[in-house]
Amino acid sequence: MSKKLTIGLFGFGVVGQGLYDIIRTKNLNIEIKKIAIKNPEKQRSLPGDIFTTDKNEILNNPEINTVVELINDTEAAFEIVSTALSTGKNVVSASKKMLALHLQELLDLQHEHGTSLLYEGAVCGSIPIIRNLEEYYDNELLHSISGIFNGSSNYILSKGFLENMDYDTALKQAQDLGFVETDPTSDVGGFDAKYKLVIAAAHAYGIVINPDDVINVGIQNLSAHDLQYAREKRLKIKLVPVAKELDDKHVTLFVLPKFVNETEFLYNVEYEYNGVTVQAAFADQQFFFGKGAGGYPTGSAVLSDIAALRYGYAYEYKKARELQGLTFTNHVELNIYLRYDDEQLVEELGFKHIHERYTSDSFKYVCGKINLQNLITHQQRISDSKAFVAFADQLTGVSLASAY
Amino acid sequence: MSKKLTIGLFGFGVVGQGLYDIIRTKNLNIEIKKIAIKNPEKQRSLPGDIFTTDKNEILNNPEINTVVELINDTEAAFEIVSTALSTGKNVVSASKKMLALHLQELLDLQHEHGTSLLYEGAVCGSIPIIRNLEEYYDNELLHSISGIFNGSSNYILSKGFLENMDYDTALKQAQDLGFVETDPTSDVGGFDAKYKLVIAAAHAYGIVINPDDVINVGIQNLSAHDLQYAREKRLKIKLVPVAKELDDKHVTLFVLPKFVNETEFLYNVEYEYNGVTVQAAFADQQFFFGKGAGGYPTGSAVLSDIAALRYGYAYEYKKARELQGLTFTNHVELNIYLRYDDEQLVEELGFKHIHERYTSDSFKYVCGKINLQNLITHQQRISDSKAFVAFADQLTGVSLASAY
Repeated sequence: MSKKLTIGLFGFGVVGQGLYDIIRTKNLNIEIKKIAIKNPEKQRSLPGDIFTTDKNEILNNPEINTVVELINDTEAAFEIVSTALSTGKNVVSASKKMLALHLQELLDLQHEHGTSLLYEGAVCGSIPIIRNLEEYYDNELLHSISGIFNGSSNYILSKGFLENMDYDTALKQAQDLGFVETDPTSDVGGFDAKYKLVIAAAHAYGIVINPDDVINVGIQNLSAHDLQYAREKRLKIKLVPVAKELDDKHVTLFVLPKFVNETEFLYNVEYEYNGVTVQAAFADQQFFFGKGAGGYPTGSAVLSDIAALRYGYAYEYKKARELQGLTFTNHVELNIYLRYDDEQLVEELGFKHIHERYTSDSFKYVCGKINLQNLITHQQRISDSKAFVAFADQLTGVSLASAY
Repeated sequence: MSKKLTIGLFGFGVVGQGLYDIIRTKNLNIEIKKIAIKNPEKQRSLPGDIFTTDKNEILNNPEINTVVELINDTEAAFEIVSTALSTGKNVVSASKKMLALHLQELLDLQHEHGTSLLYEGAVCGSIPIIRNLEEYYDNELLHSISGIFNGSSNYILSKGFLENMDYDTALKQAQDLGFVETDPTSDVGGFDAKYKLVIAAAHAYGIVINPDDVINVGIQNLSAHDLQYAREKRLKIKLVPVAKELDDKHVTLFVLPKFVNETEFLYNVEYEYNGVTVQAAFADQQFFFGKGAGGYPTGSAVLSDIAALRYGYAYEYKKARELQGLTFTNHVELNIYLRYDDEQLVEELGFKHIHERYTSDSFKYVCGKINLQNLITHQQRISDSKAFVAFADQLTGVSLASAY
């Protein structure tokens, strides 16, 4: 009943090797025919003849019906995936940045060529969030999706909160453990979380959004004062991507540090773990928890996609096809905490209302309602002045701007 | 692309009404043609002509292609579901007892007639556990599945633990709220959780088990002493169904009260909520949390199944089809806590090793390793003597009996 899959694998890093190990231990009617790698000099754990440095040995091979793409180079990944989809090969990919940046083109290619592209492993590692949004919540009115989508930044935050480690030391340790790239911006700056959020939103709301239109504020400016503030209020700081339906026409997306309290499930998601909270009209609150990164958890998600291809599975993007008339907006109001030095910055941000103001010799903060658009306009200014911004409210506190 | 569903609905209780409300608010190409009810005298919120008391008005109606079965009578439910499946109608059901008792017949009927039976709403309300076991974990080596599968008994336990309410008062309150039937045995005795466990095990391990072969010990004998013991050790008591793969040939299932510690996610699942922990070889630990009962959450799961039928979805029972050679066994050893009055009982249970023994004027307990088969043999005796048994270990502590 299932179809034999002959796989060409791109990339043999931690996920690719995890996947290879899993497939080897199971009798799945799956065969990895070729593995394309960048560096032929590197010592490998397998016989040399399975490797190639020429992508066309996979893409032009008629004996290979499935491409699994697990490489780091965004544009090379897009070229591989789009070529495969255009030439009748199904694809499994875990490249979130590539997927988020090219989502509409990839949807169109699948539609045009009748091929299937699956990417559960790209979003929250082992947590089956895409499949559930696509299949299980396909008729649900989803109020919001939020969570912890990036294990690396969460690791740093846990080190800070639970072990009192300062940001730079925690970052260094995460880098030493291989959790964070040499350039940590994608993880700690919230870009990685944003790409995942954009992909999830396509399945949750049927809208394809340009990642450039979505704000991502990271945790780089987090200081001991911010941790102190959180502790005094029995809160934790997490880096939280949010997609929220504001009314039946508008959806907003943003990635911001957020204060979470102990009644929220995200409060207990520590270190490299991920968690996703789905708030739906009928199912009410749902929470998914699991390992967000690592060779085996991500390999497991990739394998699950590969296995689904044996049965002809393809995302149907039902919500996108049924045109729900939802549009994306940044014209929303929300409460933020701003720890700052420069009074001028508070002026410029144009708070609609400041309901808390603290000044001491060591640090200053305000809490107040702001239009997200103002935050976007002044994002560079905030970053440069080493101010720290966090979302300081329940998701229900996010609403369409009144003047809109 | 989707097929129009014309539905005959059996039952118009809290779930049926929840479902009706959901369908009415959405444009889903779904029409509820007829609703079969037992009591025609009862005041209804809809015009009378949609109702019937004759099941054949649905089962023999060629205009109806889908049956949704939400009634309480197990045997009547089986007759309805098996007739519908045999005559070309697809079925969505939420009757866990009926499903667990007749699972093999229902698998055979689907196979024989090419019809589809879906039942996500039968297991853990809004949590999509069946779909994920079936689709996402279909190639995973699942070490174990455990959780809180029954919201009613969990409500009583939360009342006891968090609000110091005694068992009888908490039970009465749960009954007044409609969480527990007049005869609470199914909920507090662990039968309901067991039926759900048996259904989940079919999708997790591909084995169809007779519920009579699986032990279920409930919380009826829980006393203030047991709560005191748990509190002193910073534990909570939860009613936990467990399915565990012991080696590549043996699976065990049981439902027992369990001491859980604060590092386990089940620790924070309170009141009517449900939680499911899946331990897998590659995905590692996964946790699903959501509302386990109520008209809307269960209605949401039922609707998700209905929507899947529009796209021709059917469970494939891949693990069952691929014959993994797993058999069910009760010959396992595990550590239990036994609070008792009668020393004779401890003798009879034949503990392999007792590693803790406590005696005072007010109560006595032992903790020790026992063969599950011995617990089954003496279950009535334990119940009659008002002793309380709880599983007192991590799941890794459950192992195949050494003499087996």
